[in-house]
Amino acid sequence: MVGGLRVAVIGATGVVGGAMVRTLEEREFPAASLRLFATARSAGRNVTFRGKAVLVEETGDGVLESDLVLFAGGDDASRRLAWAVAEAGGVAVDNSSIWRMDPRVPLVVPEVNAAALHGHQGVIANPNCVAAALVMALKPIHDAAGIRRCVVATYQSVSGGGADNMRALLEQSRALLEVSDALETGDADRIAAAAGTPSPVAFNVRPQWRWEPDGETEEENKIVAETRKILAADIPVSVTAMRVPVMVGHTLAVYLDLDRPLSPDAARAALRGARGVEVVDEPAADLVPTPLLAAGRDPVYVGRLRADRFNPRGLSLVVCSDNLRKGAALNAVQIAEYLLSAGMLRGRGETAQPQGG
Amino acid sequence: MVGGLRVAVIGATGVVGGAMVRTLEEREFPAASLRLFATARSAGRNVTFRGKAVLVEETGDGVLESDLVLFAGGDDASRRLAWAVAEAGGVAVDNSSIWRMDPRVPLVVPEVNAAALHGHQGVIANPNCVAAALVMALKPIHDAAGIRRCVVATYQSVSGGGADNMRALLEQSRALLEVSDALETGDADRIAAAAGTPSPVAFNVRPQWRWEPDGETEEENKIVAETRKILAADIPVSVTAMRVPVMVGHTLAVYLDLDRPLSPDAARAALRGARGVEVVDEPAADLVPTPLLAAGRDPVYVGRLRADRFNPRGLSLVVCSDNLRKGAALNAVQIAEYLLSAGMLRGRGETAQPQGG
Repeated sequence: MVGGLRVAVIGATGVVGGAMVRTLEEREFPAASLRLFATARSAGRNVTFRGKAVLVEETGDGVLESDLVLFAGGDDASRRLAWAVAEAGGVAVDNSSIWRMDPRVPLVVPEVNAAALHGHQGVIANPNCVAAALVMALKPIHDAAGIRRCVVATYQSVSGGGADNMRALLEQSRALLEVSDALETGDADRIAAAAGTPSPVAFNVRPQWRWEPDGETEEENKIVAETRKILAADIPVSVTAMRVPVMVGHTLAVYLDLDRPLSPDAARAALRGARGVEVVDEPAADLVPTPLLAAGRDPVYVGRLRADRFNPRGLSLVVCSDNLRKGAALNAVQIAEYLLSAGMLRGRGETAQPQGG
Repeated sequence: MVGGLRVAVIGATGVVGGAMVRTLEEREFPAASLRLFATARSAGRNVTFRGKAVLVEETGDGVLESDLVLFAGGDDASRRLAWAVAEAGGVAVDNSSIWRMDPRVPLVVPEVNAAALHGHQGVIANPNCVAAALVMALKPIHDAAGIRRCVVATYQSVSGGGADNMRALLEQSRALLEVSDALETGDADRIAAAAGTPSPVAFNVRPQWRWEPDGETEEENKIVAETRKILAADIPVSVTAMRVPVMVGHTLAVYLDLDRPLSPDAARAALRGARGVEVVDEPAADLVPTPLLAAGRDPVYVGRLRADRFNPRGLSLVVCSDNLRKGAALNAVQIAEYLLSAGMLRGRGETAQPQGG
């Protein structure tokens, strides 16, 4: 254990922040102390870490006292405090999107581009949950055959939108099951009355992100930009992002046009050699990636590797991963682990408490 | 009204057959009589048509007495009886997949390739529900700018798999709502115990079709082959098909590489000029195609038209349609309407009953 590493999690009562706390514990991250922060609304609650209750504090300058701060408190907290942490000598690993494309900030999936962490300036960005899974699947294929175009359609779970979104799916599902005949006939009035919205996510498929002026969603633009930054490659990426009635686990249908032909067998071999990737591709046994398979698990599952009958350089695949783990909390903790192992993260305090806030 | 047109529907107690009966009624199809057929298990039931109960008969040679037979009774009935109907002088419009790629058989979406009906030999195929919606969206774009490659990811509703599949989604949804925490943690044992299957469709995304030796699903191969046949164009099509927890309405995320650049505005204009297509593309008002919008409605909804920032010839779009209507029953009845209007379908009986079997 590295002596005296003071760790903080911002947004600790949220879906991603909560997953970060559990991930730190599960992976036995060598924190000498853990402080938890959240907005005023959630401050005062307790969150369990290593069997002890940790009191959640209100996010403020208290975070500057930590050596490592995992940010999962939303854009405002990250905008206000990420660079302040760096200036105070700590390291911020930021799950918000606001610093990801900043040229000063490495955007990192450790299995793919850990080298980008060297020379960091104290703020490191954790990628979008789709981009993180996507680059895990693309990197081994890009190394093997070069990707010249990537077309992605997403099937994203509601947990990517936070706890409110998860509750909404459960509530809408219960309400719409009471009027299931309206789902069959498309009775918009009864659906809206039952679900409390004219366009529910339950029993539906829809984009659920801020719209950009060019007709893209903010999510689609993030996925495109971040995938290219992490892979450090000028790959044309096109994305259609959809929310589906799934609690946890994002699914991606990916079509690749490659520089050189790569058979499904060769692609599977390349993927099997990649850390953090698990190939699940036995259709005869009904074993293919699904969000229910990925939920609660660390690997990025890749399967349905298929050649394109019309294009010798075409390759299709399906990717599933837990958007709260590799898509968020796990990747953030892996970044911190890499920093530690490379000597880029050290405790500054002399009198840190062992465990607990 | 054409005199004495005797109409039969096979599979009349199923999801698609039932929709055919309702569509014949809604569109005031000039049937002098309607006979309904189903398997022995369902024969003896009554189905309402124009306010009267029609007794469902067991599928057999009785169907040969009709002038127009709409087949929605599955592969076996179609294999056994479609050509017998033709030989008896009638016309079979077949919703099964077994004759679709037969060179003797026109595969028709009337708005796209009605001309293929001329010179038919008595058996006409109704396309796969995804292919029918896809060609409706592709044809105007292909005419305007030429499609050189088409990549599709589907989000297909369970009604495409029939009534049992719809019941399964409702039952699995109810059961899994009781163990919603297991959906979050990915507790496979509790999910399987509650849903009665290790890989439910509720709160999940998965392929749900027969697997082909090449790793494609039967559904994907159908969509590719049928799209090319209906468009009569050698377009490379690549499809990833998924079932999602939606009752009615299929969604397609489509990426096109075109021969000539076509702006989203120009594409919308071309689509607005196409019969049966409705452009829904006002993101600022949250108006985009969704399966809940399409369910219970006739049009094929197209939206999310977007240029590709990396490819001047790239174009993305989203397509939603009611898989039981344009994807099945509506299209079959439209084929019959076209045959009637073109004088290719006539009553042979002298003494047909007005309405009812």
